Amino acid sequence: MSEARILLAHGSGGQLSQKLISEVFQPAWNNPIHSAMLDGAILDLPAGKIAMTTDSFVITPVFFPGGDIGKLSICGTVNDLVACGARPLYMTTAFIIEEGFALSDLKTIVASMAATAKAAGVHLVAGDTKVVEKGSADKIYINTTGIGVITANPVYSPQRIEAGDVVIVSGNIGDHGLAILAQREGLQFQTPTTSDCASLHEIGRIAENYGSSIRVMRDPTRGGLATVINELALQSGLSITLKEKLIPISPAVRGATAMLGVDPLYMANEGKMVIIVAAEAAADLLIALKRTNPSQDAAIIGNVKPEPKGMVLLETDLGSARILPMLEGEHLPRIC
Amino acid sequence: MSEARILLAHGSGGQLSQKLISEVFQPAWNNPIHSAMLDGAILDLPAGKIAMTTDSFVITPVFFPGGDIGKLSICGTVNDLVACGARPLYMTTAFIIEEGFALSDLKTIVASMAATAKAAGVHLVAGDTKVVEKGSADKIYINTTGIGVITANPVYSPQRIEAGDVVIVSGNIGDHGLAILAQREGLQFQTPTTSDCASLHEIGRIAENYGSSIRVMRDPTRGGLATVINELALQSGLSITLKEKLIPISPAVRGATAMLGVDPLYMANEGKMVIIVAAEAAADLLIALKRTNPSQDAAIIGNVKPEPKGMVLLETDLGSARILPMLEGEHLPRIC
Repeated sequence: MSEARILLAHGSGGQLSQKLISEVFQPAWNNPIHSAMLDGAILDLPAGKIAMTTDSFVITPVFFPGGDIGKLSICGTVNDLVACGARPLYMTTAFIIEEGFALSDLKTIVASMAATAKAAGVHLVAGDTKVVEKGSADKIYINTTGIGVITANPVYSPQRIEAGDVVIVSGNIGDHGLAILAQREGLQFQTPTTSDCASLHEIGRIAENYGSSIRVMRDPTRGGLATVINELALQSGLSITLKEKLIPISPAVRGATAMLGVDPLYMANEGKMVIIVAAEAAADLLIALKRTNPSQDAAIIGNVKPEPKGMVLLETDLGSARILPMLEGEHLPRIC
Repeated sequence: MSEARILLAHGSGGQLSQKLISEVFQPAWNNPIHSAMLDGAILDLPAGKIAMTTDSFVITPVFFPGGDIGKLSICGTVNDLVACGARPLYMTTAFIIEEGFALSDLKTIVASMAATAKAAGVHLVAGDTKVVEKGSADKIYINTTGIGVITANPVYSPQRIEAGDVVIVSGNIGDHGLAILAQREGLQFQTPTTSDCASLHEIGRIAENYGSSIRVMRDPTRGGLATVINELALQSGLSITLKEKLIPISPAVRGATAMLGVDPLYMANEGKMVIIVAAEAAADLLIALKRTNPSQDAAIIGNVKPEPKGMVLLETDLGSARILPMLEGEHLPRIC
């Protein structure tokens, strides 16, 4: 029996497109806004500032330990909104699907998106589906674009970082990058690695309690922790020192990355947040984060200094310090 | 001399990604919101309802007579917002680029997006760039997602369509589909065909003057005029009759489609709007549309009847009527 597959006509805008919407997307989104079948969604927004962010997801493989491209596509945009100091409200979803992709896989991915969005309190309000010929895409690419209402006051900004501020990361780093690398290369480790792919909406809610003490938040995805910290140093015009022994890395990731000769500081994370916080609020925030599920391994990993401007220093376990640069080149394409 | 090309590392999130942002995107967008280099944009929105819409553009070829994928990607989302009864305000842009794509072509596309957005009064506020290996995409795909403030009052809806309402199309149909078909197949016609790709923000402004007389607007892209009219008939539960001789089609498109045996009623348009309007306001609206540049060929093409419910009838030039179905299958993939 041949499996149902996506055809070019599913992207035609005609009858098969309607069928895909009514049989796959609408039952999953289960959302009166989306059901209106207009060219777009009509939304009510509370007064005030909003955040808007977009990401396309091209990860390979599409299904991986700890998630799939659907879950990832929701978490990624939720986390970017949280990093903007916003409560995620609405999201659009746009699919580019390779002709011949299994309809059952699409349904699995869509179900995963729906469940992740529901847990994060996000409504999926409008969508688009394009189908391209076999060989013109690699299985499926998903764009999600989200808007949320800004609750951070003042708005997060690297310009608000001050010397003396403390750097917190919300948990172990490197898991997502290593899990994808291991799956692609068929590597087997004693402790299997799982992506940390998670929605960080709860971290956003915790941060709301700390007002102006929170200077900025960023999720260290592509380029990893080292790259995000470098962006913050550059954009603040200050220096950030990380202490190597304080950076939380699971024993499994530590062992596997050492064996492979890759640096977990540059590996992508999909369920972690870097938070720069005023020193006097750091301990209290850390305790609050450690009480919450996606951030129970949160740790203070460094602090902000006036000099050397725009640079990141890594204090090694031996007490020496070296410059930690931004990611150069690309060691793991299509990680998200 | 080798031409500069997009590398996988341009999508890494690291140094080359930053370089692409600072050297290609930021100078083009030229926008303080986008320059903040946050994970997303922080926006001020007026109070009230907003519209949100998303589209991915996968058109081939990327450059075509009358436009390119960049212009198309802005016009498409502007026009969807206008169809929602909204004034377009903000848009995100997300690129999936095939490794090896010429940097000069990317710059041309980005310039085209910037110019089109500026003319439409839209701010491009946040973006994303992913690069996939050669063979994992066909040159470049662009997602745009837009939000706008709803000015239509009451909100446009097919449920507001009434028997007796009049159907207007804002100009000649079939140009975009035929231009793409001709370029792909290397067809030469006596009169070269050009895509109608255009931003219809001015039609939105005109429509604002007609209040509740405007029932609904839709832009007949994929699937063409026939498919959009069928959607409206289905969603309103009423019947729509089109008069074949009233449907505006340029002599060039009429001749070429007859020769090729394709039906312009199913060909995509990228600069046209279908408007369902109360009969008493139709003539006045038509005059206003015909005074404005992207709609000078606007025409009344049919009207709404109570029966047969959910169906579209085409009255031919000979006076007979036939059922005009929604597009079945796919005759021209990747038209937008």
